[in-house]
Amino acid sequence: MALLKDISELDGVKLGQDLHGFAAELYPICRSITGDGIRQTLAMIQSRIPLEITEIPTGTQVFDWNVPKEWNIRDAFIKSPAGERVVDFQKHNLHVVNYSAPVHATMPLSELKPHLFTIPEHPDWVPYRTSYYKEDWGFCLSHNQLMALEDSEYEVCIDSELGEGHLTYGECYLPGRSTDEVLFSCHVCHPSLANDNLSGLSVATFLAGLLSRRDLRYSYRFLFIPGTIGPIAWLARNREAANHVRHGLVLTCIGDSSGFHYKKSRRGNAEIDCAAAHVLTQLTESPEILEFTPYGYEERQFCSPGFNLPVGCLMRSVWGTFPQYHTSADNLDFIQPQQLTGALRVCAGIVDVLEENLTYRNLNPYCEPQLGRRGLYSPAGSGDLDAEINARLWVLNLSDGGHSLLDITERSGVAFSLISEAAALLLAAGLLSPVTEDEEENHSGTVAREIATQCPVAASSGIDR
Amino acid sequence: MALLKDISELDGVKLGQDLHGFAAELYPICRSITGDGIRQTLAMIQSRIPLEITEIPTGTQVFDWNVPKEWNIRDAFIKSPAGERVVDFQKHNLHVVNYSAPVHATMPLSELKPHLFTIPEHPDWVPYRTSYYKEDWGFCLSHNQLMALEDSEYEVCIDSELGEGHLTYGECYLPGRSTDEVLFSCHVCHPSLANDNLSGLSVATFLAGLLSRRDLRYSYRFLFIPGTIGPIAWLARNREAANHVRHGLVLTCIGDSSGFHYKKSRRGNAEIDCAAAHVLTQLTESPEILEFTPYGYEERQFCSPGFNLPVGCLMRSVWGTFPQYHTSADNLDFIQPQQLTGALRVCAGIVDVLEENLTYRNLNPYCEPQLGRRGLYSPAGSGDLDAEINARLWVLNLSDGGHSLLDITERSGVAFSLISEAAALLLAAGLLSPVTEDEEENHSGTVAREIATQCPVAASSGIDR
Amino acid sequence: MALLKDISELDGVKLGQDLHGFAAELYPICRSITGDGIRQTLAMIQSRIPLEITEIPTGTQVFDWNVPKEWNIRDAFIKSPAGERVVDFQKHNLHVVNYSAPVHATMPLSELKPHLFTIPEHPDWVPYRTSYYKEDWGFCLSHNQLMALEDSEYEVCIDSELGEGHLTYGECYLPGRSTDEVLFSCHVCHPSLANDNLSGLSVATFLAGLLSRRDLRYSYRFLFIPGTIGPIAWLARNREAANHVRHGLVLTCIGDSSGFHYKKSRRGNAEIDCAAAHVLTQLTESPEILEFTPYGYEERQFCSPGFNLPVGCLMRSVWGTFPQYHTSADNLDFIQPQQLTGALRVCAGIVDVLEENLTYRNLNPYCEPQLGRRGLYSPAGSGDLDAEINARLWVLNLSDGGHSLLDITERSGVAFSLISEAAALLLAAGLLSPVTEDEEENHSGTVAREIATQCPVAASSGIDR
Repeated sequence: MALLKDISELDGVKLGQDLHGFAAELYPICRSITGDGIRQTLAMIQSRIPLEITEIPTGTQVFDWNVPKEWNIRDAFIKSPAGERVVDFQKHNLHVVNYSAPVHATMPLSELKPHLFTIPEHPDWVPYRTSYYKEDWGFCLSHNQLMALEDSEYEVCIDSELGEGHLTYGECYLPGRSTDEVLFSCHVCHPSLANDNLSGLSVATFLAGLLSRRDLRYSYRFLFIPGTIGPIAWLARNREAANHVRHGLVLTCIGDSSGFHYKKSRRGNAEIDCAAAHVLTQLTESPEILEFTPYGYEERQFCSPGFNLPVGCLMRSVWGTFPQYHTSADNLDFIQPQQLTGALRVCAGIVDVLEENLTYRNLNPYCEPQLGRRGLYSPAGSGDLDAEINARLWVLNLSDGGHSLLDITERSGVAFSLISEAAALLLAAGLLSPVTEDEEENHSGTVAREIATQCPVAASSGIDR
Repeated sequence: MALLKDISELDGVKLGQDLHGFAAELYPICRSITGDGIRQTLAMIQSRIPLEITEIPTGTQVFDWNVPKEWNIRDAFIKSPAGERVVDFQKHNLHVVNYSAPVHATMPLSELKPHLFTIPEHPDWVPYRTSYYKEDWGFCLSHNQLMALEDSEYEVCIDSELGEGHLTYGECYLPGRSTDEVLFSCHVCHPSLANDNLSGLSVATFLAGLLSRRDLRYSYRFLFIPGTIGPIAWLARNREAANHVRHGLVLTCIGDSSGFHYKKSRRGNAEIDCAAAHVLTQLTESPEILEFTPYGYEERQFCSPGFNLPVGCLMRSVWGTFPQYHTSADNLDFIQPQQLTGALRVCAGIVDVLEENLTYRNLNPYCEPQLGRRGLYSPAGSGDLDAEINARLWVLNLSDGGHSLLDITERSGVAFSLISEAAALLLAAGLLSPVTEDEEENHSGTVAREIATQCPVAASSGIDR
Repeated sequence: MALLKDISELDGVKLGQDLHGFAAELYPICRSITGDGIRQTLAMIQSRIPLEITEIPTGTQVFDWNVPKEWNIRDAFIKSPAGERVVDFQKHNLHVVNYSAPVHATMPLSELKPHLFTIPEHPDWVPYRTSYYKEDWGFCLSHNQLMALEDSEYEVCIDSELGEGHLTYGECYLPGRSTDEVLFSCHVCHPSLANDNLSGLSVATFLAGLLSRRDLRYSYRFLFIPGTIGPIAWLARNREAANHVRHGLVLTCIGDSSGFHYKKSRRGNAEIDCAAAHVLTQLTESPEILEFTPYGYEERQFCSPGFNLPVGCLMRSVWGTFPQYHTSADNLDFIQPQQLTGALRVCAGIVDVLEENLTYRNLNPYCEPQLGRRGLYSPAGSGDLDAEINARLWVLNLSDGGHSLLDITERSGVAFSLISEAAALLLAAGLLSPVTEDEEENHSGTVAREIATQCPVAASSGIDR
């Protein structure tokens, strides 16, 4: 488990601080689906990893959508008759409904109220609201703030601009030995919200940094991209690249203290689904594996029926299910250094499985080869079953060209790391040969593969001949 | 859910009374597998719905069987030496073993006893017995009646006829837009037994009545038919029509107070099996889905291996498992108006699912279409997942030409009604096109369909590409 | 259930005594993977059943292995300075590490100790150790014996020979009507260990004896063979015979008081897997069905990927999991006559299922045939469901050429014996015709067969050969 092992050898405390520190740097920026907030964010990522920035002009058609206007904001406030800023964008960028059209007026509280949003159950928190595809304006404030407003005239100002401009996203492409790709995607359109999604952004940046220094089987692509319109635009412009995506993972809400949730791809039995489930089971406590649903983050687009890419979604808390979700309470205290490190480790474990998950053919398929004279067998006939020997026997037994190491892992119940080490030893001993991608692809077209509807089934799957 | 909705708008109390009232009208008639009791019954059905009556002469070969003699009965009694009718067919038609050969004799109790049948555990109830395919005679009486018989000579009379005649059944055919058929079948051969099967008969008659006034996708055929020999005769004479049966349901014992039981077709994963399970789950408390068994009612013939029609069986109590089964206690009190209404509603729900269960193709399969500008998306980015939007996303995501709305229902866990409404809206918005029957049939020949061994699997099955 | 029935009619007490008595006769012999101990053992088996003995010269290559040297031993001891044999091979053959090279020397205890093996947790027991593929020598003794050894000089003698010779195994082939084979295999290489594997050896010998007097559908082959190298050598020399193995069973550790364990073949859904599971459920208490693993006994070779034979393993206690395993406590008291009889009965039940598990075609597939006029139906329409009629309806309903009787058993939940009897009656009545092996083989090529991944599924789908 090369990458995971490397991470384990780093100073864990420092790593956590770095991950959290990067999130903290990004926190104050007022991001939206377009505009300078994203540009500033991408520039900060670019200072750490190679990042190609794409700008798509407003109005460009991307599938069924058009790239929206660019939104930028300088200031916003609600001022009391006494001249006091009772709601102030400078204090927290959540105070403005994201994508608000400009406004400057004076109006009585009664007229202002329909534009004010609060969370009565959490009277100290400020909600996060957006109005992307309908021109409107509004303010978010704590319920206590609202309660304190006297019935009088207020000066209302949103000094924003909505105009021709661009949709901006960043892409870090790390070429590997194969043009087949592993895709990581995280949305960068949220303003000062830490778990959703500075957590994903920070972990993805560090993961890309670590991978950029390695010799890799797959090519890796990291998308730092606004939600919904971002992946739609990317897919519209990169249909060829999309064809190369062999595995993918959306990263979101991975910094809080919840156990992990992995939402499967639409396929439900893709290699990424098996790999993520296995790694989470190995590395974390009580992970939960969720079935695919068509609502969520970028996987909505990657898993649309025309693409149906094998892209799952890794989360700690699931969006919409925790009270802090889309409120000012999703702040830098809500995400913790060690939780970010844990998420990075899970990503690394998944990368290791994907990198190492080859399919082999046992070159001595008739009876067992004599492991003893190759130093691969405990010489004493003691009946003690050594885990390593067990792993070797599993690899030999199932390496018939139709079972990947992950398949063997699933069927045997042995950890992938042990299976992978066993395969390396057996390969070195001349007992295995790797099955080429071509052979694999041919095989993957067979009924046996298609009927596998979940990993444990896939493991033992129709493969027996 | 068009038909179910229409029923919901009727006066429920009156509907229940009508259903029970029709059963009450039919109750006194002495039916058997042949004879005037059936003719009289069919005539009463014919006064409510269009019914074609078929008469098949005694001796006609139908597959491995021959149409039996016609049985009719005028009177029957056991008379005491004092001239009192101690057992009297006029009081209850269960008193005669159904299909008894004529007899008129005087004999001591000892000689009579082998011809007498009682239920010692329920000393007040009269059992129901038949002797169809072996010429014999007998009387059924309560155990208390038997105990009261003194040891003396009795005059025994069964004034019946067994002779050349006909097998009679009725058929209500309602042509729809397609010649593909939905078959409803209920046996009409039982005398004064209410749940088994005046309940089925009454509900089927009302269902046919309601459907006869509608524009329908499928053609509907209702069989009112004697058990065993009836469906055998019908299948022997209607092999072509049998080929058109796409879905079928046997209705029996649906008036008592038990929760529903649905027994699957031999196929086990037919559309009717999924539809019935879904509707029962939506509309009723604690329904139970039973695996197919080759014993039962008309489904025994429809699901014989040569036909293997997708025909299931809807019941409340399962035949043979309730004490009143085949006794005089299965009377008009044992079935209740509201239970009959409930059964009619379930049938209507199933019809609605079958009628509406089309397969669509998403015309914007690459990424999501922009629902918002079509008024199909809640405009606020609040993260609240509205059930209707969720249903629309599911329909769009799985409408790849390989998933019917019922498949989408199963995989999503969303109610069929919501899925169906979502599809209607999306269709109206030009986002879907229906897959033609031809395309569907081609598709249904693929591996994907064949491997589906149960509905939940079918839902998600290997079908994703 | 012909064979099981015959066994049931034998004197059970005597049968148990005979089975245990044969194990007792074999117990004292010092067996190893080669040498006279095996020859003597095979000769004793040969006195009871026809047995062909094969001798393969040392050095012969068999796949990746070479036949090892032949090992024979006359005597071995450790003698105290006082001339007393403190460890004596004549008292128990476990005292010598099996396959020890000759040695004759005098040495201090400190030098001797690395060659001594004990079980501290069971201070009275002598362990069983081997050193097959690494030339070495050693003694096994009780921990109490070791503790009693004074620190002085000992005369050490192992009067063994390791030289050119042969590997010896025995084979009992019982030709049946088909050249398709059922393979039973048991290892004969263990010295005085009763459960592992004189139990298997005795039961196999008696089973072969019983089968040798019968007219059989399949040919049967019993292998009495040293572990690992034995099946490797047999497979290397009998690749054609291996192609004929339709079902196989390794017998080991079947004499102790544990409930049964059946370890599935690598295929996991082979007919033998279903048959063994069904018979164990019918005949024994709380059997456990284990998934295939590549570690174990001869099945390791039979289930290597090049062969992938449908061979499972029948055990009571699982090797390595009971304290007596590979110790002197695995003695003649550890196995009991009635346990050996029980194992023989299970084997007989499995043989009966395999022999009788044919596939039929219902000759009246359209509707039910009229069972009544053939005396195959209870004539009273009482609703009582007789188990025999139920079995007949199941056989008729599923005999479409794609379901074997075992498939019908699995799907119906009815005992195989009832299903088999029903089929016999229906066949006699002209209602069924057997599907020929050719037809079956063609059928087994269909998708339906390939997708079956476990027996209950297999039941409805048809399956593995």
